[in-house]
Amino acid sequence: MRPPVPLPGRILPAPERRDFLRRLAAAGGVALAGVGARVSAADPDDANLPPNVPAWSRALGAPILASPYGVPSKFESNVMRRQSPGLTRTPQSSVAFTPLQNLFGIITPSGLHFERHHSGVPEIDPHEHRLMIHGLVARPRLFTIEDITRYPSVSRIHFIECGANTGMEWGNVAVPTVQYTHGMLGCSEWTGVLLATLLEDVGIDRRRARFVLAEGADGASLTRTVPIEMAMDDVLVVYGQNGEMLRPEQGYPLRLLVPGVQGVSSVKWLRRIEVGTAPWNTREESLHYVDLMPGGKQRQYTWIQEAKSVVTSPSGGQVILDRGYHQITGLAWSGRGRVTRVDVSTDAGRNWRTATLQTPVLSKSLTRFRIDWDWDGSPAILQSRAIDETGYVQPTLRQLRAVRGTRSIYHNNAIQSWRVDPSGEVMNVQTL
Amino acid sequence: MRPPVPLPGRILPAPERRDFLRRLAAAGGVALAGVGARVSAADPDDANLPPNVPAWSRALGAPILASPYGVPSKFESNVMRRQSPGLTRTPQSSVAFTPLQNLFGIITPSGLHFERHHSGVPEIDPHEHRLMIHGLVARPRLFTIEDITRYPSVSRIHFIECGANTGMEWGNVAVPTVQYTHGMLGCSEWTGVLLATLLEDVGIDRRRARFVLAEGADGASLTRTVPIEMAMDDVLVVYGQNGEMLRPEQGYPLRLLVPGVQGVSSVKWLRRIEVGTAPWNTREESLHYVDLMPGGKQRQYTWIQEAKSVVTSPSGGQVILDRGYHQITGLAWSGRGRVTRVDVSTDAGRNWRTATLQTPVLSKSLTRFRIDWDWDGSPAILQSRAIDETGYVQPTLRQLRAVRGTRSIYHNNAIQSWRVDPSGEVMNVQTL
Repeated sequence: MRPPVPLPGRILPAPERRDFLRRLAAAGGVALAGVGARVSAADPDDANLPPNVPAWSRALGAPILASPYGVPSKFESNVMRRQSPGLTRTPQSSVAFTPLQNLFGIITPSGLHFERHHSGVPEIDPHEHRLMIHGLVARPRLFTIEDITRYPSVSRIHFIECGANTGMEWGNVAVPTVQYTHGMLGCSEWTGVLLATLLEDVGIDRRRARFVLAEGADGASLTRTVPIEMAMDDVLVVYGQNGEMLRPEQGYPLRLLVPGVQGVSSVKWLRRIEVGTAPWNTREESLHYVDLMPGGKQRQYTWIQEAKSVVTSPSGGQVILDRGYHQITGLAWSGRGRVTRVDVSTDAGRNWRTATLQTPVLSKSLTRFRIDWDWDGSPAILQSRAIDETGYVQPTLRQLRAVRGTRSIYHNNAIQSWRVDPSGEVMNVQTL
Repeated sequence: MRPPVPLPGRILPAPERRDFLRRLAAAGGVALAGVGARVSAADPDDANLPPNVPAWSRALGAPILASPYGVPSKFESNVMRRQSPGLTRTPQSSVAFTPLQNLFGIITPSGLHFERHHSGVPEIDPHEHRLMIHGLVARPRLFTIEDITRYPSVSRIHFIECGANTGMEWGNVAVPTVQYTHGMLGCSEWTGVLLATLLEDVGIDRRRARFVLAEGADGASLTRTVPIEMAMDDVLVVYGQNGEMLRPEQGYPLRLLVPGVQGVSSVKWLRRIEVGTAPWNTREESLHYVDLMPGGKQRQYTWIQEAKSVVTSPSGGQVILDRGYHQITGLAWSGRGRVTRVDVSTDAGRNWRTATLQTPVLSKSLTRFRIDWDWDGSPAILQSRAIDETGYVQPTLRQLRAVRGTRSIYHNNAIQSWRVDPSGEVMNVQTL
């Protein structure tokens, strides 16, 4: 593992530059002096160059502003959001998953943040967009984006997880990679105005108000009810994500953010907030986003994303090439506040060790955990278990199914198991 | 300011969809039923649609994965890195500035992070790239990227500021906007390996080692000396930025990060670390990146970026359209640790109020500050003043010039002044 160390090559002018100088010299244009002195027109090739100096060290690179808005290296083009073929009937009402296996830290790059739309991504002109706040308020009002951005702003780092994340795992489907098992998950630094600030400014009727309805400006007019306790606490009307304006697929120019709650409540392309006395029971909170329980009853309005975690590396579809030291790393989060501990097992839950949490650990944010692992080449089953500040412990799939059955879609926060074969192959297995 | 509130329009199918259905119906293909029942082939136009329902609420939007790697809205195309025409002779050895006036929170979007190159951006194949560590070590070694990413990793949020940031202001040049005065500044969640981890693994000679040299793989072979105290403390060998692999212009696939120190020390495209006993006095630390003092002497190896802050909104080039409430916001940072307080003045420093700091406040990170302001329309001069955990107070330009003169380029951390005219126009003024 420790190859001999060649000395660094002396850096010579790039071939391209030498060609340029040679052409100029042939044209009688310049004297070759200084650093160019070693370059003669008789030098026919790169024979003088040390063999281990790569081309990029011998040439001028790309100029500044080659991309006024920068993009990843072409060598990273396999790192992208992906859809699950056949999962939905149309690409407008569908999902694209975050490549969690490729990510570091806690911030999800905005370009890789998962997408979930009900009627596609509208192209909204921010100058034409309006947010209406009405219902049980003294002064109903239409806000422009300029109005909203003039209010006192806050920035907070929070996760968004779709309520259906890991939904396939309720049954006996073992989706192959963490991108597809847990990739309806992202975490950003969101900037906006507290909804409470806006509601107070329009004179909310605090005595009667019990719920608010949020409505999107997309073709689906997606609507969700939010309890007033949340609306007056930490719910944000957001225009900024990771330092810049929201991306179109994240709700540009305005979205709701309901921290800790299933993603559908964080209504994108937000155009309307209504204050009322009872839940609205709209389509996306009565036909969908309900939890089918054993016996056929349904749980409705199950907002919170309970404590959950997943090992992202090594994870399904990856291959461990070597025995010896590896860092096991993953993400933990809780819709109820801070993650206080993450335990990791390499033997399917018989033994647990406590992982290191990346600081600062933030409330209702992703938390990166890391732990050392010396792999001896024998079969292993990797698991992680999150515990949050309420004392809640992430359940096993067996525990969760005992209460919730196997026919649900939403709010699967069970412990995830990755099996490591002696070959190094890692695969998703359902360990109860 | 409170327009009447129209009721939200009932959502009808989009014209495009209706056209589609009409064509299908004409072809005898489908019966128009259900939601299509109100759509008749005789309906010639949009007369039935409420006038205030925008097109994007009446149509399917873009499908998922319209951008597998997402990009900003086309309405944000003016938010970009920009160069200062004429600042440098070639676009490979140049600068592009971060648009601080458009940004929120503390994370700089990677696509907008400032660029500063000495020989352009090399296109490096990560499979071919190597990092050599040699010199006063027991086991000199070439590392592949796979080797590096296998080490225990950490993620930390840190700023990078070019030592020449705000350099034009040493003289009497008042650069018009905060993008050009302070835009060689960014802040990211960086992921990598502690340099100390690598140095210990190759058996650094702790008794003799005093400095390390870092060298880039770009055509400039940029080199910088780093004191061993920093190298063994919080210096990182970085491959991740804001959750994904480094961008090419930020050093893909590997860079050094020397937290709190002028940007040039955070050598990009890192290919070599040498451990030695004395500073190397290379080109970029003897001819450049030295501080010209009064009397003609130069300060060399002035690493630290001392406490500094700037109001980013309102800032030069912006126009305040209305009197009344505004939020003054900006950024503060210190190369010595945490910012503990930011004061804001609207009267050129006669009176100061303490701003709110966005939490968590992190060491050697940007810190967002915010404070309310009720503008009465009279002339104002906006300033901010950062204080860090060492007790250091950001100086006025007068104080800085008394020590450093006016002929320097680097390490200008003076208080910035923006004048607000009664017209609402904001401009850069040098207030001593």
